[in-house]
Amino acid sequence: MKNFINIAVVGLGQVGIYLLNELNTKKKDIEIKTGKKINIVAISAKSKNKKRQFKINKKIFYKNPLEIFKHKKVDILFESIGLSDGISKKIVETALKKKVHVITPNKALISKHGNYLTKLAEKNKVNLEFEASVAGGIPILRSIKEGLITNKISKVYGILNGTSNYILSEMENSSEGFSEVLKKAQKLGYAEPGNPKLDLNGFDAFAKVRILSALAFNNKISKHKCLMEGIEKIELKDIKIADQLNLRIKLLGISELKNNQLFEAVHPCLVSKKSYIGNVNGVMNAVILEGKPVGQSILQGEGAGPGPTSSSLLSDLLSILRGNIKKPFGVSFSKLKSLKHYNVNNYVNSLYIRFEVKDKPGVLSQITNRLAKYKISVKRLIQTPDKKNNKATIVIITHKTSEINCNTCISKIKDNQNILKSPIVIRLLD
Amino acid sequence: MKNFINIAVVGLGQVGIYLLNELNTKKKDIEIKTGKKINIVAISAKSKNKKRQFKINKKIFYKNPLEIFKHKKVDILFESIGLSDGISKKIVETALKKKVHVITPNKALISKHGNYLTKLAEKNKVNLEFEASVAGGIPILRSIKEGLITNKISKVYGILNGTSNYILSEMENSSEGFSEVLKKAQKLGYAEPGNPKLDLNGFDAFAKVRILSALAFNNKISKHKCLMEGIEKIELKDIKIADQLNLRIKLLGISELKNNQLFEAVHPCLVSKKSYIGNVNGVMNAVILEGKPVGQSILQGEGAGPGPTSSSLLSDLLSILRGNIKKPFGVSFSKLKSLKHYNVNNYVNSLYIRFEVKDKPGVLSQITNRLAKYKISVKRLIQTPDKKNNKATIVIITHKTSEINCNTCISKIKDNQNILKSPIVIRLLD
Repeated sequence: MKNFINIAVVGLGQVGIYLLNELNTKKKDIEIKTGKKINIVAISAKSKNKKRQFKINKKIFYKNPLEIFKHKKVDILFESIGLSDGISKKIVETALKKKVHVITPNKALISKHGNYLTKLAEKNKVNLEFEASVAGGIPILRSIKEGLITNKISKVYGILNGTSNYILSEMENSSEGFSEVLKKAQKLGYAEPGNPKLDLNGFDAFAKVRILSALAFNNKISKHKCLMEGIEKIELKDIKIADQLNLRIKLLGISELKNNQLFEAVHPCLVSKKSYIGNVNGVMNAVILEGKPVGQSILQGEGAGPGPTSSSLLSDLLSILRGNIKKPFGVSFSKLKSLKHYNVNNYVNSLYIRFEVKDKPGVLSQITNRLAKYKISVKRLIQTPDKKNNKATIVIITHKTSEINCNTCISKIKDNQNILKSPIVIRLLD
Repeated sequence: MKNFINIAVVGLGQVGIYLLNELNTKKKDIEIKTGKKINIVAISAKSKNKKRQFKINKKIFYKNPLEIFKHKKVDILFESIGLSDGISKKIVETALKKKVHVITPNKALISKHGNYLTKLAEKNKVNLEFEASVAGGIPILRSIKEGLITNKISKVYGILNGTSNYILSEMENSSEGFSEVLKKAQKLGYAEPGNPKLDLNGFDAFAKVRILSALAFNNKISKHKCLMEGIEKIELKDIKIADQLNLRIKLLGISELKNNQLFEAVHPCLVSKKSYIGNVNGVMNAVILEGKPVGQSILQGEGAGPGPTSSSLLSDLLSILRGNIKKPFGVSFSKLKSLKHYNVNNYVNSLYIRFEVKDKPGVLSQITNRLAKYKISVKRLIQTPDKKNNKATIVIITHKTSEINCNTCISKIKDNQNILKSPIVIRLLD
């Protein structure tokens, strides 16, 4: 690699503008650490004159990022627009074809088109780096690709969505409902003001799970949607009941090899307040990795925001400047496996099931009979009357049962006229 | 780098023999991940016929490791003897001079001779890798050198000695005294049977602190012994009192920039039971890193044992096989700083001070007067009488005060005839 490196930054939102400032202020440090001089030759965003946190050099501004390649020789491109398709995909594709290294925090893009883009990068012998796409500032991808590389990993899981974790923590702290806390999160910049759906329905965490699986198990990025549930149905009531049981609700992303089949899931989970994961609160992210011979490894850090994201983007840059590994997923694409998918019907957990019922004789026995019919045995039961409204809340903690069993059982119970609304089911972590 | 790589393993203790087995069983995996075929051409240990966990190939055995170079072409040498000097230093030195890459888990060697060996490695353009020397299987050095590389790190601290952490945890769990628990630790292989001193007096953790400082602050390895205290003076009584105060005692290693001066310390610390670090128990290690812009990062994992150590040794091997960075401390030795040392006298903490006194009138006021004279103000005081023996225990939690102030004050108090033994002083974590 030559000594003068030309860089383009495309997308100047919160992350892009912070990154640009870091690149400008850390040129000298980067030179000391890599021996390379970097030069920012082009920037691009929708609007040239929008008010931004840091000043931009308007002389190198391009409204259409694809124009950059016509006018400038670029060695490394940062893509921080953030779409899974459209211009994000187009610019990354074009760059790789032109033998330009690409660095991106875009998990939507990588989880959807990672296989195709990886092949393209390898064919053109350039890097495609995406450390910032999973768990913000936590160097988790590099740790799997390098620090823990020869371990046989059996499971990676953790808190991968800071927005959901903040909302769940804050509901517990403030005793406010989901929608009040969501508004607060939006005000603080922890949730998108327009459409926070992708954070809340599990989609964002699922994209990260897909990337983690590919790295941990040397597998192609899966296209199969195994199990994805968000936190939208969690009510303050569930958080309070969990609290009484010394439990806490966390949205977990899980990637695991079960009988050598790939199991990928995102769903809320009840975890012990005494457990490590039960104490990762607010916008923090945490990833737990189980491997042989290393045992259990934990990495925790800030999962989002321009600072942590830039930290990871720059680590990718320095890795490229030092001429380090080329393969986006550690091994060459042709050597990646295509693991079979684990049948989610066989996923087994203890369950928390909350029923809202009419307070009249026989209802409880109707429920427990139905559970017994499906061989779902009760570990714990708490019935709380609401005399005024002639209602009662029944919470049942079950022994382990399979998804298929639970789903069939619940679908039968639901039609019971004494049950006032769809039961809330939350899985318990082992 | 050529495609066939010759490897020698020197030292076949618990770590060496485990590593050898991993190398033998993971040849294929290593080839897939790096494109290189490894071949173990020489092994060496004190005894050829000692009973070991895995069989060795006696045809490639050398009693004197220095003989290896006379007979074999070696590309990469693993040193796992573990001495800071003697044959450990000699074999590493010889290898580097012969342009052989060296990988070692030997913290004693690196913390003592790291500067010299780094210069030697850079001069001969080979790697000197020591990921396994700090915190076992946790990829902390690689994370600082790569994943968090452009961050301005201000502090690195954590639980760096699994033996001490096990003993402190087990004293709390079992209510047994220091020496009983030490015996248990020795039986379980967590403490050295012969001479566990280096784990218990803080020396082992201090060696790791030195290595962490060098990497985190781009500094030469310091020769200055700032503050080193072990856990030997901690009594079950202190652990019980801490428990009542909702605190827990942990041996912390700390490396910090204070006014741009280097502060390195190892000492027991009282931490909140609710804090993250207060919940890292048993033989676990944890490293907490504060940096900008990444914020706080935490890495936790098994800190010792052949499995985790081998995980790190192999990550070093694969880094070399992939042709990755050459500089042992991330930047070239000539660019490493020589930071001034922070004066430990100015180190400021709240303190826990336990006095064992004669139970007679006026003793308490003698103590508090003396503290007042040194402007050490009392935040909390607990006096517990031991009527039968005419004694009392006085525990004082102070507001913040400096080391020099505390030391002078305690040295004056000590001579008081009503004070039965040297007071126990433990610092509180902020």
